[in-house]
Amino acid sequence: MKLLRFGAAGSERPGLVDESGTIRDLSSIVDDIGRDTLSNATLQRLRKIDPSTLPSVDGSTRLGPPVADVRHFIAVGLNYTDHAIETNAPIPAEPVVFSKAPSSIVGPNDNILMPPNSEKLDWEAEIAVVIGEHAFGLSEEQALSVVAGYLICHDVSERDDQLHRSGQWIKGKSAPSFGPLGPWLVTADEVPDPQNINLWLTVNGLTMQSGTTAKMIFSFRYLISYISRFMSLEPGDVITTGTPHGVGLGMKPPVFLKPGDVVELGANGLGRQQQTVVLRR
Amino acid sequence: MKLLRFGAAGSERPGLVDESGTIRDLSSIVDDIGRDTLSNATLQRLRKIDPSTLPSVDGSTRLGPPVADVRHFIAVGLNYTDHAIETNAPIPAEPVVFSKAPSSIVGPNDNILMPPNSEKLDWEAEIAVVIGEHAFGLSEEQALSVVAGYLICHDVSERDDQLHRSGQWIKGKSAPSFGPLGPWLVTADEVPDPQNINLWLTVNGLTMQSGTTAKMIFSFRYLISYISRFMSLEPGDVITTGTPHGVGLGMKPPVFLKPGDVVELGANGLGRQQQTVVLRR
Repeated sequence: MKLLRFGAAGSERPGLVDESGTIRDLSSIVDDIGRDTLSNATLQRLRKIDPSTLPSVDGSTRLGPPVADVRHFIAVGLNYTDHAIETNAPIPAEPVVFSKAPSSIVGPNDNILMPPNSEKLDWEAEIAVVIGEHAFGLSEEQALSVVAGYLICHDVSERDDQLHRSGQWIKGKSAPSFGPLGPWLVTADEVPDPQNINLWLTVNGLTMQSGTTAKMIFSFRYLISYISRFMSLEPGDVITTGTPHGVGLGMKPPVFLKPGDVVELGANGLGRQQQTVVLRR
Repeated sequence: MKLLRFGAAGSERPGLVDESGTIRDLSSIVDDIGRDTLSNATLQRLRKIDPSTLPSVDGSTRLGPPVADVRHFIAVGLNYTDHAIETNAPIPAEPVVFSKAPSSIVGPNDNILMPPNSEKLDWEAEIAVVIGEHAFGLSEEQALSVVAGYLICHDVSERDDQLHRSGQWIKGKSAPSFGPLGPWLVTADEVPDPQNINLWLTVNGLTMQSGTTAKMIFSFRYLISYISRFMSLEPGDVITTGTPHGVGLGMKPPVFLKPGDVVELGANGLGRQQQTVVLRR
């Protein structure tokens, strides 16, 4: 299934995308797509519904983030060898884990709000997993069983705030709009091999990133197992798993986003996002 | 007011502590103490209730964390000069900001679960603020107006996982039970000067930490304003503001927690916590 949330920011309703690409309204079945609807049992129940029995929704409606009320927004850094090299960072011996503020999450096509004094606003196309079941101390063999699904995450980053502000990366990863998610949450049963997803990103139509999850240093399976040894994962938590080569910081000379720029990103099977950069008031 | 939550883990009920120290059940008034009850308007409504009209609760009941369903658990590192010195860290030019997993949060007297292979489990007595109103880009003058209240936070830390695992501090700060909060949320109106709170911590009765928020490098006001420039703060978010001198890592030689150890910590006006360290299964 492709699950999504549609409508105005803050009052989104749950939906799914049927085989023809039409959005169907799920509000008569579940209150929302979030921690209470992501378990294997609930997803199995939703799968049994005939989408044609659900009201169709105008395809021009705004899309929100496909998961409501994310509590822990976990991110992995430097998880593609060529991206670590381009940013002059060492290849990590273990996954680099940090977090993004949950308040950074927006819909897949909402504007990116550029902080007023930002000079190094950068893009990072990523694939994220959404956790569907409580998970702690999982083996690699168990790890994928707690994944409700996969989605595209744009890990928008302000490099000065991330790297040069006496602190951890969270400062440069957390501003409002720095976490576009979606357009859909594609349930795990429809992603037979998560290590074979192509992802790409363009800025004003120019391809900047073109990678594949086949080149992740640490696999989805490994990351979930690894992180679950340090903390309990809960339904609705999101783990975004790093970006491939081609960010602005790695260009020679570096290139950063500016107001009016249009960023598009996508991944096979997971849809696409499009954002316009606007200066935050 | 002193607000709290009592009952079994996962099914706590809201309460308050009356002037005699008796817990009163607030469940007839609010569903819970959390993001929907922390606004100035709701707190003002609760203040008008005569506690003697509420059912009293057995004082031996378990206490949960005073805030339900925390979404963003933000932490500040190295915020007392003598603590930075004892851990051989430079005095930060700007606040060091990281996060703890919300799933680390437990009640004030719950056991601390020692990870099976931990050799450097450490304590950190801290004062935390709970945010009551949406806040973004606040000035220092505005900052304290969004504080619903103050509480004690034990920022339990595994130093190997924090400092030596190819990553950011989050790995050593996030295990289940690493975030005892409480016993109460003391509303801001009853904390006339947050920069004048004494806090202390003992291990097996020996005083390890004895400090005062007067010695914070960055004040509550400054921290809230500073963090709100990087991310939007939302009701129910918690910011814990760093620990004074006297952690185990700073002892010569270092001293770490082991199963059976009893940690007590407290702060004037904010109550006290007591935890026993047990080996996690």
